[in-house]
Amino acid sequence: MNSFQLHNPTKLVFGKGTVDQLGELVKPYGTRILFVYGGGSIKRSGLYDQVLAQLNGIGATVFELPGIEPNPRLTTVNKGIDICRRERVEFILAVGGGSVIDAAKAIAAGVPYDGDVWDFCVKKAVIQEALPLGTVLTLAATGSEMNGNAVISDWDRKLKRGMGGKPIYPKFSILDPELTFTVPRDQTVNGIVDMMSHVFEQYFSKTTDTPLQERFAESILQTIIENGEIALEDGSNYAARANLMLCGTYALNGTLPIGVETDWATHAIEHEVSAIYDIAHGAGLAIIFPNWMKYVYKERVDRFVQYAVRVWNIDPAGKSDEEVALAGIEATRAYFTRIGAPATLGQLGIGDEHLDRMAEEAVRYGPLGSFKKLEKDDVKAILELSL
Amino acid sequence: MNSFQLHNPTKLVFGKGTVDQLGELVKPYGTRILFVYGGGSIKRSGLYDQVLAQLNGIGATVFELPGIEPNPRLTTVNKGIDICRRERVEFILAVGGGSVIDAAKAIAAGVPYDGDVWDFCVKKAVIQEALPLGTVLTLAATGSEMNGNAVISDWDRKLKRGMGGKPIYPKFSILDPELTFTVPRDQTVNGIVDMMSHVFEQYFSKTTDTPLQERFAESILQTIIENGEIALEDGSNYAARANLMLCGTYALNGTLPIGVETDWATHAIEHEVSAIYDIAHGAGLAIIFPNWMKYVYKERVDRFVQYAVRVWNIDPAGKSDEEVALAGIEATRAYFTRIGAPATLGQLGIGDEHLDRMAEEAVRYGPLGSFKKLEKDDVKAILELSL
Repeated sequence: MNSFQLHNPTKLVFGKGTVDQLGELVKPYGTRILFVYGGGSIKRSGLYDQVLAQLNGIGATVFELPGIEPNPRLTTVNKGIDICRRERVEFILAVGGGSVIDAAKAIAAGVPYDGDVWDFCVKKAVIQEALPLGTVLTLAATGSEMNGNAVISDWDRKLKRGMGGKPIYPKFSILDPELTFTVPRDQTVNGIVDMMSHVFEQYFSKTTDTPLQERFAESILQTIIENGEIALEDGSNYAARANLMLCGTYALNGTLPIGVETDWATHAIEHEVSAIYDIAHGAGLAIIFPNWMKYVYKERVDRFVQYAVRVWNIDPAGKSDEEVALAGIEATRAYFTRIGAPATLGQLGIGDEHLDRMAEEAVRYGPLGSFKKLEKDDVKAILELSL
Repeated sequence: MNSFQLHNPTKLVFGKGTVDQLGELVKPYGTRILFVYGGGSIKRSGLYDQVLAQLNGIGATVFELPGIEPNPRLTTVNKGIDICRRERVEFILAVGGGSVIDAAKAIAAGVPYDGDVWDFCVKKAVIQEALPLGTVLTLAATGSEMNGNAVISDWDRKLKRGMGGKPIYPKFSILDPELTFTVPRDQTVNGIVDMMSHVFEQYFSKTTDTPLQERFAESILQTIIENGEIALEDGSNYAARANLMLCGTYALNGTLPIGVETDWATHAIEHEVSAIYDIAHGAGLAIIFPNWMKYVYKERVDRFVQYAVRVWNIDPAGKSDEEVALAGIEATRAYFTRIGAPATLGQLGIGDEHLDRMAEEAVRYGPLGSFKKLEKDDVKAILELSL
């Protein structure tokens, strides 16, 4: 186990009807609120009205920024920053999934920063302060509700980049599983793949002597696998939706990477694909992750054997370690296919026309990952396996 | 799963040599420091000098409160409160195990409170504010390094009571596994039992649909069981000590009880025993917990079956559920005995002379626990099983 710091200041408010606590949660931070959301789904569901009622209840002045894109755009973030500065906004409230929350975080970081918010994405600047923000989560997927990370896209330049820092942890996040009852099937699928991928990035590690972290990761994966299928069959199953929602948060709230060297190569590769093609992040991950696994498993067969046995209940009797490891990878692909995630880029209409550019961009800061360091050719090979 | 709030503001600083960060961690909180510790072990180990060097390095004025007892006394807490008030202390630093940390928390809560600090223990007052505190942990056991609970004893009245609140979460806790290399065997054993017991109190629950919380609990138990025996064989095994230390923290840092009705009857019963006999908390728990399990398992045989199979690898083939459940309980007792924990009160020289008084005191606020509500006669029966 490596040395580490663990500090997560976000307050999680979880359960049925917890949106009723929104007003009280926002109150300490001020009354000039930027209300950030995506499309019309929160209006159709009635959540929009509920949020406004809560904010009106504390006498807030509300400015709205609707229309956050699934891969949130730099231009939209800049629009939000302008509103906050012009209207002296004191608090940002994100109501939606990971994209809405990420946009809100980028806005929060950008407001007090005397420069281009994109600087945080290209490591030209570090987030020193931010407007406080809170969230109401409507989609179990990215974990953004309880961490300090955000991913935004510069659509003009076809770039998708992450930023991060302690000041953009949400002050609170409201997680009501009932808000996810109406999430469409494909978004539920993408969410499942996304959260499983977050676990993979932290579980397939070269670090040894981390039995608790490994078991926590396996716990999250097993719980997602079981509850994912139930939620897909019955979208209004509270227990399944609640378990998925909790797993999405724990997959990326800092519990798994403590003392562990994490990888994140697959995410970086997927970002290059979705920067060009604007596909759903979860769909991209479903295609690429099993291919990454096949490409790298020989770096540490024992970890892949453990994964196969503990997560997928593969019986190792009479099999070589290599066979067990590969059976675990196959089980991953089979599960993704069973829940309806794509298996090839071809299924999304993506060919080999930009492989070189994507591989080139992916390694712009140097080789990717830590489990196996990936150079441009490695990235290209994984993308070729994914065609 | 029930609704819940999760918010843990403590910053954990974990790893070899992390005491070197102490000065920087204390600095934001002031320079007038109360340094709280127990006996001479931190002087023998050199930790005392290291801590003073760190505090001197930031120009701190240090007031010392040594001699915190294994079950920290109200009188000692009051001594600390007096020093803080008289010397205008700005920050409390606890260096030691759970008792030292608990004493520091009680002092921190008592300083700004206009009344008897014992009020917090008897629910006459709620902790509204506290001096900030930080810890350097030297013993993996109570989890006090990352929660808002403290237990203190009024030795004159033979009472042992807990207090709790958000203001007494440590601002930071330094966890260097090497500091636990010299922990004597019996204290290592008590620590193992203590942390396993914390998990039991949150795992044996009537709440359903909590698969992630259950697996997290099982993960902690399995990791303690494996690493406990390694640490007892080789006290300087870094990985084993680190894994135990992390498990001790996670057993009681708020991860397990989210959305779960917890029990805590066994802790309450043990408090009555150690209030009268001043035995080690871990020793008392080792004696009582398997007897509590035997007394209550029929309330929910399925959970005990799951425990036996997942934690102790009991093969259920050809056994009734009841047999599997009992085998898990027996495995618990066998493990405690194997690591050298006591199995009966008699082994500690405790007879039946105060059973009535202890049972009476245990239920003073009403029946204990939630898994099975225990009345006075139930408590007495469990204590009789423990003689």
